[in-house]
Amino acid sequence: MKIKEIGEFGFINRIKQDTVVKPQNILRPIGDDSAVYSIDNGKVNLITTDMLIENVHFLMNRITPEDLGYKAIAVNLSDIAAMGARPEHAFISLGIPGDIPVDYLDSFYAGMKEIAKKYELNIIGGDTALSKSGFIINIAITGTAFPDKILYRNTALPGDKIFVTGCVGDSKAGLHILNNNDPSNIEYPELIYAHNRPYPYVDEGLFLSKSNGVHAAIDVSDGLVSDLGHIADESSTGYVLYADSIPVSETLKKFCAHLSFDVIEFAVTGGEDYVLVFTADHKYASEIVKSYQDNFEKYLYEIGVITSSSERILENKHGSRQLLNNKGWDHFKSTDL
Amino acid sequence: MKIKEIGEFGFINRIKQDTVVKPQNILRPIGDDSAVYSIDNGKVNLITTDMLIENVHFLMNRITPEDLGYKAIAVNLSDIAAMGARPEHAFISLGIPGDIPVDYLDSFYAGMKEIAKKYELNIIGGDTALSKSGFIINIAITGTAFPDKILYRNTALPGDKIFVTGCVGDSKAGLHILNNNDPSNIEYPELIYAHNRPYPYVDEGLFLSKSNGVHAAIDVSDGLVSDLGHIADESSTGYVLYADSIPVSETLKKFCAHLSFDVIEFAVTGGEDYVLVFTADHKYASEIVKSYQDNFEKYLYEIGVITSSSERILENKHGSRQLLNNKGWDHFKSTDL
Repeated sequence: MKIKEIGEFGFINRIKQDTVVKPQNILRPIGDDSAVYSIDNGKVNLITTDMLIENVHFLMNRITPEDLGYKAIAVNLSDIAAMGARPEHAFISLGIPGDIPVDYLDSFYAGMKEIAKKYELNIIGGDTALSKSGFIINIAITGTAFPDKILYRNTALPGDKIFVTGCVGDSKAGLHILNNNDPSNIEYPELIYAHNRPYPYVDEGLFLSKSNGVHAAIDVSDGLVSDLGHIADESSTGYVLYADSIPVSETLKKFCAHLSFDVIEFAVTGGEDYVLVFTADHKYASEIVKSYQDNFEKYLYEIGVITSSSERILENKHGSRQLLNNKGWDHFKSTDL
Repeated sequence: MKIKEIGEFGFINRIKQDTVVKPQNILRPIGDDSAVYSIDNGKVNLITTDMLIENVHFLMNRITPEDLGYKAIAVNLSDIAAMGARPEHAFISLGIPGDIPVDYLDSFYAGMKEIAKKYELNIIGGDTALSKSGFIINIAITGTAFPDKILYRNTALPGDKIFVTGCVGDSKAGLHILNNNDPSNIEYPELIYAHNRPYPYVDEGLFLSKSNGVHAAIDVSDGLVSDLGHIADESSTGYVLYADSIPVSETLKKFCAHLSFDVIEFAVTGGEDYVLVFTADHKYASEIVKSYQDNFEKYLYEIGVITSSSERILENKHGSRQLLNNKGWDHFKSTDL
């Protein structure tokens, strides 16, 4: 069955089941001119939005529809997580080619509903349009937070220690495998998984927002150096990154050794890792690390320090230093244009 | 200058000026992972979102970038207006072809900022992505309302009078002219204007939400019959439309006479009119009409009645009746697929 056989309203009726997981504050979900929901007193509302375009952000034959739906929500949740907020509601706009099978869309929604349920996120609105140029996904997610607990990008201070919540570089390696149809990909399913099903650090972001001494945060979407560059730019600081402290997975090391890639370059320029990078007052650092470990049974990785100079520096094991610029993945300047 | 020469962040810096027109509640506008703003106590928040895709919803050589920006915001404002809410903040996601001139985008934003200023709407977030398949626009707009004042679709009652706030059919005629490059279009600039610069009935929607006896409302985006069909479907009612009471402009009459089109068919199936259709208790109808006229120096047009049967009927001058179905513009079933 093709989407053009069931029409827009047939499609909306099909996908609106199981979209509200927290009904308390929902006055009107999918099906009116706007979704309507109430906000708790004393809190502020956040909105993030991300557009994913076929053949730019994904190839339909390299990711299952379930994973695509899962990832489309995950990358937006990651933006809410990076502010230390609680995700609340999602709005899904789709540009759909007329010959797309309805089964494909059902699977896409199944992936979205899977992660939405996991993070108690309601899907309560959106738009569906015909597309003559591939599958287009735009997702907006709202969140709530107490105004004094939000983590911004421009609040890093010189002397802050820089932490990251997980390994970087796996997603870029997964993308490399997918793009090159490398026959060795069977050896590295974890890398493809990291690219197709990123983990949004929602609970971890909430934890950090409540921890004393955490100053600035961002999620790694464009690459560690590029995203840390945003913190540095907007906080008018620089940083030193310790190359050997940056967490990389054993699988990535094996992959890079196998293909003669520089593992540190993969780690710092990767992109789409969706780990959180944050800065914290050095006096609170050990307390934050311990408490995080107690809560999540996971490590926080200290990878550098914020400096008052505007230089961005990568320091290697033996103390040699290399100047960085904010390179990373700039959507418009990418060389494949 | 092409967009790929200035890059994503160059573009963001370029467009973020003049985007916040009501700074009071804005904690963080464009430039962090999410926009942050506070909500008044006791009110609820609404969100609407609309995706516009090149070659589906617009042709870049048939609408100026200013008008396209203006219209993209207007159609979303219309959804907020149809709920009787006050628009607050806009979030703009764009999929941008790499060779689009920066001037084009500046003009597009100028059109958005023009209407945003007029309706006191802040532009405070969004996303920009590279598109390899045309210009893609997704806009989300939030609004606020008191929960007991919101106008829904499913609250029409049998016996309600049906009103419309303005003429229908002009936009469809404008589209016909644009699509057919009709040399006569010079005679009908109003029709092209109606299509390219729709008027969102924001103040009027707010007025109706506060008026006693107004039951259900929707904006005419797919066509009068189709959108009134949503009210009928969701309120489990039917309706009778009086063909001769439906307001049509003198220009549309001239246009239809000239090209031998049925003016009523244009009016009831048109689409993209963005007038409001609402239903009101017959006891309050004359009070609403008078008070609306006093406030806005404009008419409300009574065009029919809600019935308890599920039939949808068009009644002609001499009392002859014709059964309607919910035809209109279904995005996926349209015959041009």
